[in-house]
Amino acid sequence: MRAFKAIGRKAVLKSAALALLAANAYAADKTPPAKPSVSDVVKASKPSDWRPLDPENTLYMDIPSGRVVIELAPTFAPNHVKNIKALVREHYFDGLAIIRSQDNWVVQWGDPNEENGKPREIKNAQRTLKAEFTVPIKNDKNFTRLPDHDGYAPQAGHSNGFPVGHDPKKGEAWLAHCYGMVGVGRDNDADSGGGTSLYAVIGHGPRHLDRNITVVGRVISGMPLLSTLPRGAGPMGFYDKPELNVPISSVKVAADVPEAERSKFEVMRTDSATYQAVVEAQRNRGGPWTKVPAGYIDLCNTPIPVREQK
Amino acid sequence: MRAFKAIGRKAVLKSAALALLAANAYAADKTPPAKPSVSDVVKASKPSDWRPLDPENTLYMDIPSGRVVIELAPTFAPNHVKNIKALVREHYFDGLAIIRSQDNWVVQWGDPNEENGKPREIKNAQRTLKAEFTVPIKNDKNFTRLPDHDGYAPQAGHSNGFPVGHDPKKGEAWLAHCYGMVGVGRDNDADSGGGTSLYAVIGHGPRHLDRNITVVGRVISGMPLLSTLPRGAGPMGFYDKPELNVPISSVKVAADVPEAERSKFEVMRTDSATYQAVVEAQRNRGGPWTKVPAGYIDLCNTPIPVREQK
Repeated sequence: MRAFKAIGRKAVLKSAALALLAANAYAADKTPPAKPSVSDVVKASKPSDWRPLDPENTLYMDIPSGRVVIELAPTFAPNHVKNIKALVREHYFDGLAIIRSQDNWVVQWGDPNEENGKPREIKNAQRTLKAEFTVPIKNDKNFTRLPDHDGYAPQAGHSNGFPVGHDPKKGEAWLAHCYGMVGVGRDNDADSGGGTSLYAVIGHGPRHLDRNITVVGRVISGMPLLSTLPRGAGPMGFYDKPELNVPISSVKVAADVPEAERSKFEVMRTDSATYQAVVEAQRNRGGPWTKVPAGYIDLCNTPIPVREQK
Repeated sequence: MRAFKAIGRKAVLKSAALALLAANAYAADKTPPAKPSVSDVVKASKPSDWRPLDPENTLYMDIPSGRVVIELAPTFAPNHVKNIKALVREHYFDGLAIIRSQDNWVVQWGDPNEENGKPREIKNAQRTLKAEFTVPIKNDKNFTRLPDHDGYAPQAGHSNGFPVGHDPKKGEAWLAHCYGMVGVGRDNDADSGGGTSLYAVIGHGPRHLDRNITVVGRVISGMPLLSTLPRGAGPMGFYDKPELNVPISSVKVAADVPEAERSKFEVMRTDSATYQAVVEAQRNRGGPWTKVPAGYIDLCNTPIPVREQK
């Protein structure tokens, strides 16, 4: 495959067949079996290594290019998740727009007229809420710690498929700003957000935002629909002309969509032994392509496998 | 600015005026002066804190949407940089294409026909070279170390405006895979690359690739032209139809372009005291927006300021 001069993560895929061959030949030629790749581990996973999305905590955001599926994380922002679902159920977002796209930073959506004196009315939900930058660490009962040092948090790992930081001394847990994570825009006042304006990370994980914003979930499918949007020419990447805003036809809670019309995804259980093998396969990549395994993995470089349910 | 519910990096910009006010009022009200933001530090920089790009080590890649400016780093890949410039000067890339765009990973360009039995002829340059994954640490005379622990390298910092890893025990230095870094595609053989196929990082810094690929430079301007390209539907993000390839009209060495037609950029000197202040402003963000300064910065979250020369 000369033309493609494969680099990196996916090049390992090519070695899966080789790895199996090597394993089969072990007894004969004494070559140690090749290390499994992330892809090998995912392929060898059991059905019990996966969990479906909970329709009650899944959002579908439909934009002209397709559907963005977001998994909400009520463990880490219970009040914001509740309020966002209330906003969705009163159709707050339907007809609003993506109004910001800043390179290596975020795409953000909400009400383009919020500042024009004609903000969209809110019926039952709340416009602002007390911040949920962290939650009591005891609330996070599913944490699986990564083996390595993390500079931004005393402990880093995963909880129910979300990247998470823990500070046992302070008794705090929080969602981390990795690629695809979804948070709640706010002004300078910590309590000025509520979920009317949301963003998704489209660049290098801005972990220095952790514990400064309420993070509510993760994009499970459709990241390219957000990450490839034209960057905004206004300050902070806001679109400088209203006609550049990307209309949101609707946001729905999956539970409110007829089952036959739902997007069905499964997320690997991050407390499974299989996920530990995924982490290690990325942390010390094997295969013929890798010459120097890193021996380290940072939280936002750790893949969280997602697949469509059959 | 309610509608915009500013999040993060750029929200600090709003606080610059407040910070100055606070500093002026210090004597009167005993409030300590507000910490400068990255933007404040950049604004207060001296001309000597900046260096122009060297036209002999700058590439212009022109694609339909505009110009991508790449700074080459001969210190870290002397033979590859020499060879890439030789390829450019024999017009190897002119008429080739961007053939791959993989979300949260890379955009890659080269010869779409390399595998079709009709690869583009190379006249004077070389098709493959011995890998330059690391260079002797003594060659890097401009290293400024970051204050924090880095998991991927014993030491991490910057050298002449590039993110760099150092291993003093092994005597090795190398360019790090951060957003916008440019590397040389290769096959499984370490020495199978030479610069005919290049890629730029468009997602979270895949630092586990460090020391596994020859990295040759950094995109100084034009990242959004690459990062917003439609993702490829083929394996590894390759475009699955030739008509989706993005044509490269030309790649030129800036020195070969008449001076009046050059894109003029300056990069902040990463060995300056001003740059140390930039790092600290990001590492422990001040301003009214930030509630919990991180007290840590990872290599790929450290901004490397670039500006257009007047």
